[in-house]
Amino acid sequence: MTRTSMISGIRPTGELHVGNYYGALKGLVEAQERYEARYFIADLHSLTTHPKPDQLRSYVIETARNYVAGGVDPQRCTLYVQSSLAAEICELHTYLSMVMPLGELMRVPTFKEKAKRHPDNINYGLVGYPVLMAADILLFKTERVMVGEDQLVHLEIARTIARRFNQLYGDVFPEAQPIIENAGRVPSLAGSGKMSKSDGAATYISLKDDGTAIGEKVRRTVSDPLRVYREEPGHPTVEGCNVFHLHSYFTGEAERETIAEQCRRAEIGCVACKGQLAANLNAVVEPFRLRHARLSEADAVDVLRIGRDKAREKAQSVIAEVRQAIGLLMV
Amino acid sequence: MTRTSMISGIRPTGELHVGNYYGALKGLVEAQERYEARYFIADLHSLTTHPKPDQLRSYVIETARNYVAGGVDPQRCTLYVQSSLAAEICELHTYLSMVMPLGELMRVPTFKEKAKRHPDNINYGLVGYPVLMAADILLFKTERVMVGEDQLVHLEIARTIARRFNQLYGDVFPEAQPIIENAGRVPSLAGSGKMSKSDGAATYISLKDDGTAIGEKVRRTVSDPLRVYREEPGHPTVEGCNVFHLHSYFTGEAERETIAEQCRRAEIGCVACKGQLAANLNAVVEPFRLRHARLSEADAVDVLRIGRDKAREKAQSVIAEVRQAIGLLMV
Repeated sequence: MTRTSMISGIRPTGELHVGNYYGALKGLVEAQERYEARYFIADLHSLTTHPKPDQLRSYVIETARNYVAGGVDPQRCTLYVQSSLAAEICELHTYLSMVMPLGELMRVPTFKEKAKRHPDNINYGLVGYPVLMAADILLFKTERVMVGEDQLVHLEIARTIARRFNQLYGDVFPEAQPIIENAGRVPSLAGSGKMSKSDGAATYISLKDDGTAIGEKVRRTVSDPLRVYREEPGHPTVEGCNVFHLHSYFTGEAERETIAEQCRRAEIGCVACKGQLAANLNAVVEPFRLRHARLSEADAVDVLRIGRDKAREKAQSVIAEVRQAIGLLMV
Repeated sequence: MTRTSMISGIRPTGELHVGNYYGALKGLVEAQERYEARYFIADLHSLTTHPKPDQLRSYVIETARNYVAGGVDPQRCTLYVQSSLAAEICELHTYLSMVMPLGELMRVPTFKEKAKRHPDNINYGLVGYPVLMAADILLFKTERVMVGEDQLVHLEIARTIARRFNQLYGDVFPEAQPIIENAGRVPSLAGSGKMSKSDGAATYISLKDDGTAIGEKVRRTVSDPLRVYREEPGHPTVEGCNVFHLHSYFTGEAERETIAEQCRRAEIGCVACKGQLAANLNAVVEPFRLRHARLSEADAVDVLRIGRDKAREKAQSVIAEVRQAIGLLMV
């Protein structure tokens, strides 16, 4: 029985935090068991902002190491870097660009927002971001796309493009349906908002932090603002205490209930409570850190090479079908 | 000694007329002796208007037959169909799209004009036409581009893109210089304007017309409007008589002067004068027609296949250099 095909793109970044682990990463690890899953590191998309070449290369490799260390299994899915299929993706992108109205692209909210933030850098490629994303999806006739809520508009454009193409050239592409990705809702160590790398290293637990670093970061974490003295009872709820909020992700139910009980009775102080959180965080992070350390850069490149070969086979058969449909001569 | 590289694009059409012969085609035949010349049949560009698939395929083959019959020599130049290098061209196109401001593209006069004529079909690819053209040129680090006057704006954009890319990623691309293509100024058989296929088959001499068809079309051609009767003297100048205007392209100087002399003295009538023109036109058309008849569709595809292989070798080395410059991982 063939599985339903699905795809998801991964932004190339150098580091993941535990918020990412509970967000996108876990979703990918689960999905590879249920779907014919393809995951790609979206280096072509990142070119709209002109990253430094050396940084881009190292981020791509590091992203592959991170995701494999986090449980994305090259045996169970196809993990490739987008640019390793640049020929196929960009060719399809060009064909799709011929059927997608410019006006609709310029009305996409994410484009308008970026256009406002980087007014000096509205390049042709930026407005075409959804067309390139459509090529990522349609290149494999993908049926499901795992995306964040903010990408639903882009997926809708991919569906529009598929429809327009089919109207002109026959029934080639399916219209992909979304699978909404787990939003990373793990709170920031800073006490407000969700964990994010952009708020500085002290505000998140990196999946590369060792036990000491985790202990130190958790020790400095904002906890219950209403519990000033050790003797006072605390407010161990998701809203009442940031540390308890973090426990809700990383601490088992029984242990968490005991902590809450002790906190409400002032039988346990913040230092001890944070110690338990740090230990539980480390239990999540350490296996990742060890797997990551065992994966060399060369291993990551090998994984990406295998992924490229698997992905390319399907991609080339779709490209051949598209060329035939459009009427391009096969010389 | 390496020759200067040059490139020119050919629109895929089913038929050429003698105006095309004296226009673009002759320029290409001459240029292949002086340059490292690449000529491509621009089928990807034509996709902006969604041609019928079967027609597109047959036009591409027919264009190759026509240009080879007209003297474009696959031994002296590289003749390929654009889509046979779609992977390379479209990949470069995507990279270039990341450095070209959208606003400048939307201010290109040819875009604005097309946008006015086809308001319902302003697709993303249409505004990117100059970016795709830049990819055609830069894919070979081409130094000269043979273009019509109307394409100079697009070439300027290709130069801008090369400059921007080099600023961001190092000195990769030269800025190509134009070679202005012979404009086809052969007059229409209808008596006003230049020869054009869009005015109907009676107004042009196709390079496939046989002697009888040429004789018939020339017989019906408008001549000197002021010479109503055979006995009146004529006005054998480029402005005074359309038939004489045509003689200026297809009849040798000595013969032409004799005709002019006889016409001014009313010693020769329009019928005889047209007979001479028809014979001279046939002398241009017949060798073309015979060469064309000897070239099968399979021959044309073979020529395009050889061209593709020659072009691809250079293209792939440039793509590799571009990927390196941008910082894409080579898996």
